[in-house]
Amino acid sequence: MYLADRTWPELGDYVAEESVAVVPLGSTEQHGPHLPLATDHLIAEALAREAADRGGYLCTPTVNVGVSPHHKQFHGTMWVDPPAFRDYVESFSRNLSYHGIDRIVYVNAHGGNMEHLREVGRRLREDEVAFAVEWMWDESIPTLVSDLFEHNGPHGGPKETAMIMHIAPELVREGKLEDARDGGLVELSDGDLFVHGARNYYDAIDNTENGVLGDQTDATPEKGERLFDAATDQLVNLLDWIDEKPFPDLMAKPHVDPQPGSRRS
Amino acid sequence: MYLADRTWPELGDYVAEESVAVVPLGSTEQHGPHLPLATDHLIAEALAREAADRGGYLCTPTVNVGVSPHHKQFHGTMWVDPPAFRDYVESFSRNLSYHGIDRIVYVNAHGGNMEHLREVGRRLREDEVAFAVEWMWDESIPTLVSDLFEHNGPHGGPKETAMIMHIAPELVREGKLEDARDGGLVELSDGDLFVHGARNYYDAIDNTENGVLGDQTDATPEKGERLFDAATDQLVNLLDWIDEKPFPDLMAKPHVDPQPGSRRS
Amino acid sequence: MYLADRTWPELGDYVAEESVAVVPLGSTEQHGPHLPLATDHLIAEALAREAADRGGYLCTPTVNVGVSPHHKQFHGTMWVDPPAFRDYVESFSRNLSYHGIDRIVYVNAHGGNMEHLREVGRRLREDEVAFAVEWMWDESIPTLVSDLFEHNGPHGGPKETAMIMHIAPELVREGKLEDARDGGLVELSDGDLFVHGARNYYDAIDNTENGVLGDQTDATPEKGERLFDAATDQLVNLLDWIDEKPFPDLMAKPHVDPQPGSRRS
Amino acid sequence: MYLADRTWPELGDYVAEESVAVVPLGSTEQHGPHLPLATDHLIAEALAREAADRGGYLCTPTVNVGVSPHHKQFHGTMWVDPPAFRDYVESFSRNLSYHGIDRIVYVNAHGGNMEHLREVGRRLREDEVAFAVEWMWDESIPTLVSDLFEHNGPHGGPKETAMIMHIAPELVREGKLEDARDGGLVELSDGDLFVHGARNYYDAIDNTENGVLGDQTDATPEKGERLFDAATDQLVNLLDWIDEKPFPDLMAKPHVDPQPGSRRS
Amino acid sequence: MYLADRTWPELGDYVAEESVAVVPLGSTEQHGPHLPLATDHLIAEALAREAADRGGYLCTPTVNVGVSPHHKQFHGTMWVDPPAFRDYVESFSRNLSYHGIDRIVYVNAHGGNMEHLREVGRRLREDEVAFAVEWMWDESIPTLVSDLFEHNGPHGGPKETAMIMHIAPELVREGKLEDARDGGLVELSDGDLFVHGARNYYDAIDNTENGVLGDQTDATPEKGERLFDAATDQLVNLLDWIDEKPFPDLMAKPHVDPQPGSRRS
Amino acid sequence: MYLADRTWPELGDYVAEESVAVVPLGSTEQHGPHLPLATDHLIAEALAREAADRGGYLCTPTVNVGVSPHHKQFHGTMWVDPPAFRDYVESFSRNLSYHGIDRIVYVNAHGGNMEHLREVGRRLREDEVAFAVEWMWDESIPTLVSDLFEHNGPHGGPKETAMIMHIAPELVREGKLEDARDGGLVELSDGDLFVHGARNYYDAIDNTENGVLGDQTDATPEKGERLFDAATDQLVNLLDWIDEKPFPDLMAKPHVDPQPGSRRS
Repeated sequence: MYLADRTWPELGDYVAEESVAVVPLGSTEQHGPHLPLATDHLIAEALAREAADRGGYLCTPTVNVGVSPHHKQFHGTMWVDPPAFRDYVESFSRNLSYHGIDRIVYVNAHGGNMEHLREVGRRLREDEVAFAVEWMWDESIPTLVSDLFEHNGPHGGPKETAMIMHIAPELVREGKLEDARDGGLVELSDGDLFVHGARNYYDAIDNTENGVLGDQTDATPEKGERLFDAATDQLVNLLDWIDEKPFPDLMAKPHVDPQPGSRRS
Repeated sequence: MYLADRTWPELGDYVAEESVAVVPLGSTEQHGPHLPLATDHLIAEALAREAADRGGYLCTPTVNVGVSPHHKQFHGTMWVDPPAFRDYVESFSRNLSYHGIDRIVYVNAHGGNMEHLREVGRRLREDEVAFAVEWMWDESIPTLVSDLFEHNGPHGGPKETAMIMHIAPELVREGKLEDARDGGLVELSDGDLFVHGARNYYDAIDNTENGVLGDQTDATPEKGERLFDAATDQLVNLLDWIDEKPFPDLMAKPHVDPQPGSRRS
Repeated sequence: MYLADRTWPELGDYVAEESVAVVPLGSTEQHGPHLPLATDHLIAEALAREAADRGGYLCTPTVNVGVSPHHKQFHGTMWVDPPAFRDYVESFSRNLSYHGIDRIVYVNAHGGNMEHLREVGRRLREDEVAFAVEWMWDESIPTLVSDLFEHNGPHGGPKETAMIMHIAPELVREGKLEDARDGGLVELSDGDLFVHGARNYYDAIDNTENGVLGDQTDATPEKGERLFDAATDQLVNLLDWIDEKPFPDLMAKPHVDPQPGSRRS
Repeated sequence: MYLADRTWPELGDYVAEESVAVVPLGSTEQHGPHLPLATDHLIAEALAREAADRGGYLCTPTVNVGVSPHHKQFHGTMWVDPPAFRDYVESFSRNLSYHGIDRIVYVNAHGGNMEHLREVGRRLREDEVAFAVEWMWDESIPTLVSDLFEHNGPHGGPKETAMIMHIAPELVREGKLEDARDGGLVELSDGDLFVHGARNYYDAIDNTENGVLGDQTDATPEKGERLFDAATDQLVNLLDWIDEKPFPDLMAKPHVDPQPGSRRS
Repeated sequence: MYLADRTWPELGDYVAEESVAVVPLGSTEQHGPHLPLATDHLIAEALAREAADRGGYLCTPTVNVGVSPHHKQFHGTMWVDPPAFRDYVESFSRNLSYHGIDRIVYVNAHGGNMEHLREVGRRLREDEVAFAVEWMWDESIPTLVSDLFEHNGPHGGPKETAMIMHIAPELVREGKLEDARDGGLVELSDGDLFVHGARNYYDAIDNTENGVLGDQTDATPEKGERLFDAATDQLVNLLDWIDEKPFPDLMAKPHVDPQPGSRRS
Repeated sequence: MYLADRTWPELGDYVAEESVAVVPLGSTEQHGPHLPLATDHLIAEALAREAADRGGYLCTPTVNVGVSPHHKQFHGTMWVDPPAFRDYVESFSRNLSYHGIDRIVYVNAHGGNMEHLREVGRRLREDEVAFAVEWMWDESIPTLVSDLFEHNGPHGGPKETAMIMHIAPELVREGKLEDARDGGLVELSDGDLFVHGARNYYDAIDNTENGVLGDQTDATPEKGERLFDAATDQLVNLLDWIDEKPFPDLMAKPHVDPQPGSRRS
């Protein structure tokens, strides 16, 4: 169920009976010459809506702009600084608890948001306000991703291309797939990524001239559909798993024994 | 032009030649028994996209969740606290300037965001990073709004109902229009709004049991279309006006004479 | 009773028996060629002290500098940035609750403070620390203001001039009243205030060369006295109203039914 | 010259020619059974206004509430938390520089504000915005204070009592002077202030039951006048000294030689 | 050269000629029944000092407490919250630039600090204050680590055990190595780490009862020495690499063409 | 007992039975031509470890970098800005309470940290999280310090020199003692410290060319040993005193009578 399409009286049963919210988050950032800047938030939104509908959960609107300063050199990339992103997400998450929501899955399709969602999740859990966990679609189906693509590329590669071919085919510039591959970095391990153990890059442009990685010509709508279905299955399973857990089981384990102060005279 | 549908190379001309961005902002909050929680962000997005397309400007994705704590008692209302909202908006606005954007129109359809957008706009202007101004659709066409509706209601009333009838008719619960009117507050001045000069309310629920105001049965898709077209015209005009201004004319006027320290020995 | 003139033992009865504080806030900003920069804080202080005395409430010292960046071009205008203002007011308000004060009226005479006081009031109410409400003198007596002046001007106009003629006549530059009128903007609606629905100004200087609005020559001490008395009456009534309310009635209404989680299995 | 009594045109010469502002700061906190809670801000204001008038400098309105949590147990004590106090003072100080003010003397009469004013002063100096220095009246005339009183007490003692006798005699409860002495701590060194080198107190009440120290019966208006005049002299001298210094001489000395990077190849 | 052992005059040549600082950071957190809580900061400090000495660079004192809330259940684990950690590190790093230091290597031995150091590094680079990069010893020698240990365990495992055997052998509880292995999780992949693509753990205790991973009995001082030498070599190489780079080459690449605003009329 | 040398199981008894932590804090800042920049953190660490061992208390690792901007002109001085310092210390202190620690002694050897530790201590006490008190070694033995040295100098003087001669003799540049004396300021009262009651200095360099004060040639290792032993005794006594106090006795005294609201109808 998509929260924003409902009227408030229609949400009464959910608020009374349920405790899970699905929150899609993405980015608005360059994805090469063949994919729209919307790529990440489109993927997150499509997966979150589909899984929420299948599983009977509540899906919120999408956070469209995330933490993407590492793509800034390319036209149109938007980003918020990490503290502002964390505080924005924490604030609406915390406020969701007013309606009894105490489990949140951040359906995320932008790697740069992950550590920040994790930090927000920890804050909410430390206060026992909610259990909020980030989820990245491709990390839920690593084997399938590897099986489908030889050079899958972590950004703007065939896996994201295939997903957009399935979700929003009109937004894929088919004629640019070869350009995308030839002007970028096909194999991540060919990049000059580390120097003596330190990261040798801050920005996407440090490793790829057109902003993308992998072999985009390997993407097809059919592969996109397989990815989408498999990831949705994973997400529904995750939502069911969280839904069924007693709340205390989702909170931090107690201090090991002996308990602090337990033998204080 | 909608930024998020473009690839980065397609944005090169705009970045090189232009300086204006249109940013839609709304809320996800109760709008009575007849309108979806999405109402405000749907209106903002529709107007912003249409005006940007007509005028040849760049429209960004929408900020879907705003400052709505005054609607919290109704199921599903989402909100962020004011400092988080301001910082999130300021951060992406400031970062847009990296691409040469130094004029931003916040196309807003939620009153509760206004003062915060104004505060952000002032910060950006004080630093001479950008001229950013908030714009509220119904305030741009006050005469038309008055002419069309007898009891127009500032929240969830016939003007918003008519707009959604035009923009997303499938989301209007037609069968609930009478309920909306009868269970809410038809005429704002009948409310118990002020007591000896102080506001006598903090939340929508203090004045309306179902969260809405005005006479919703007065709304029609045709009125919605007239509102939409008139407001879009205003917005295009505003964008043109801002686009044509030299940047210094958009910045603060200088200190009055005599200039500070001008006669210091 | 003025808190700062008392010794601490003299406040014991009030602390034990009462729960209301009156806090005057103003600004230190230009008020044209005829009025002192103190205008707003003088008005707030005079009204707050008088109403507190009449009604038997406790009045605190005055916050003299507020949020006035929109007057900065004129010599001597002082201001604090909004976050600092909010935090300062929130901090002492919150700390007043240590003495049992859980109702605060911010007697304010500067429009630029209003939205910030409202934001602080909401924070205090959300935490159920106190009910704090902002009050602006002229908004409590709109009919009288309209009756007395043809061109009342929202800043430095005849209503403020008359008030200072009554409160601190020695501070009015009588010989400058015509200059004030002729060098400023007599009728607000003649100003170039909006452009296609957006504010076309940020600062006072954008609309008035000498910083003021309205017809100052229309002010008299007698009118000032009438304004002062009428506004004081309103304020006393407001304080009595707040004093009599049970605290829970001043806090937010509960979540609408069904209650969150009430039917959770 | 008192800024707040002036109109903006009257301040033009000062803004053009001068660079110094005098800012009074105090507290609103218990001062025993004989002195008003206003004591500190009355003293600061009286000294600042007098010295500004004598020396031809600009005095701003007073900050009436400071950092006084250590007096909170006594009825009516008001306070702001340190970060809010610092940010408020920093904000208006920084904004004064818009009018060419780059030297500020914080005329302070409350010990609890000192370290915070120093921290603000350092921030302003590090950014080379202004030279702002805190000044505490009794620290400018230590010999006179010692000569006049045997048990001078750092809080609510005879020196502050004498000052209020001179500045605002109607606010001194003459009949309570003996009570003040007998119910407090006459000699600071009799207090239980330190334990093995650590402070053994956080709050005034830890050492004095009625909140004050010293022998209040030793105060006279004549002593108050001598203190006032001597301190004012010091303050005028300080203002003249600061006024005459070239701005660079008030800023931080440069890095010692060799300069960083000066021999970098 | 260890900064803290030097006098200031002895640092003059370095300040004049060089631009690199080495900053060790670790944690104070549980490392099982066999290793001290100091483990991470001891390793970071030993490597940083050795590499700085070999390469002729300046090493600062160590930050001993980092971001370790995920170990909190075990006695004695200390931690700071992420915003405080980031601000502390950013502040001293930024201030180091006053002495001409514009390249910093954060020699880190605690995984939980990494993302925060990266965030700080990005802030410093965006302002072009310094190039600061985090470095994690074991990530610089992945092949050697794999070759030496079958079950190397990311926390408290044989690689850290061997390092402490080499650096501070007196702190290894030799008699507890088998306990460490048997009471913990030998093979990370046996842990219940992910559920449908989401992390199924927040804290170390969620996967290991005694807090550690891997086979500690596989550690020897000789292996520790090899690890230490190899990692030091990597670090020296990294420092040389950074030292030789022109500063602009360490800063962000420019915006892709066309440049923002370049064709604006 | 030094926390960082222990394994977590070894800390179980302490956590169960005790409630005190000893936290050493210093600075890394210039101490003249004869002492290392580490001086303050070496002294704090040595005293804290020794006293903790003698008294059976838990000592944490050292905070090596503090608030030292006033020494910045001299090569190598490191510092953090006050808000970052306070937040870092507050964060780990607050988190120590998770292990039952509710009494903390900040063993500090750098004057510039004192007011900030006091502010942190007050925050922790207001929330009743912990009683945390700052302790400065030389302030615990003022008579001995005066007896031992004629010109003891508050920074880099003979008392600190003697302490380092005792704690880390290899770090004292014996050949530079006369230089230290002759190039600095021997007698503080000869400095130009105050002007008309205001501080006439911000930085060490304003009063001493080589950064130090006092007569360093008066230091001997024997004097250092006496200082060290006497200060350690004081610290052990302080720890015992705090350890024995019931927790409520360490918290703030209650509001004076009548209690707030006690007679409210």
